Amino acid sequence: MTLKADAPRSNCPISRFLDLFGDRWTLLILRDLLCGKSRFAEFEASPERIPASILADRMRRLLAEGLVTREAYQDRPTRHAYRLTDRGRSLHPVLVTLGEWSEIHVPDTWRLPDGFRHP
Amino acid sequence: MTLKADAPRSNCPISRFLDLFGDRWTLLILRDLLCGKSRFAEFEASPERIPASILADRMRRLLAEGLVTREAYQDRPTRHAYRLTDRGRSLHPVLVTLGEWSEIHVPDTWRLPDGFRHP
Repeated sequence: MTLKADAPRSNCPISRFLDLFGDRWTLLILRDLLCGKSRFAEFEASPERIPASILADRMRRLLAEGLVTREAYQDRPTRHAYRLTDRGRSLHPVLVTLGEWSEIHVPDTWRLPDGFRHP
Repeated sequence: MTLKADAPRSNCPISRFLDLFGDRWTLLILRDLLCGKSRFAEFEASPERIPASILADRMRRLLAEGLVTREAYQDRPTRHAYRLTDRGRSLHPVLVTLGEWSEIHVPDTWRLPDGFRHP
């Protein structure tokens, strides 16, 4: 449903943001990339346990949107390492904003690591 | 999928935010409430054309989360007006952050109205 090539629902900037990131997983993959993860096995090991099929789908969309690039680090079978582009890294302060909202308004959340809050 | 009473996927504050708001519609309803809309017909008239069944589902979840309250303004049939609670209004700066990201990084978005950006 997200990161579609379909026509946007409107040109409201909030709606356009949700066209790209309005699902439960995409921004978690970006969080992990910002924390230095790069390989599928690393994303799958995160505590939210992203299903492999969703991970593959969302990563494909992130590549198509120019938020992520990839590079093969192994042949037979080919395996890729994924890295944020500048456009992808530009979401870092947005993720901090979401996390800080939850720290205040959702009980029992972890604290954002200082290194994540102030990169 | 969102605003579930289910156990959170993790206590990461970003993940918890997405447990609540990780869909394409919930934050658009909050946007409309912040702009002064209060009735179902008003939300349905927004340019993204939210389907009535999704609107009813998301509003029920927003009520359950204490982000919105409602009050009947008509009997037979009963119709309700919806308003943000303080907890709901606390999302205003988060929505501005999402919108400002899109203004810079997504082509052809509208500008956020000044009254929305600086409430």
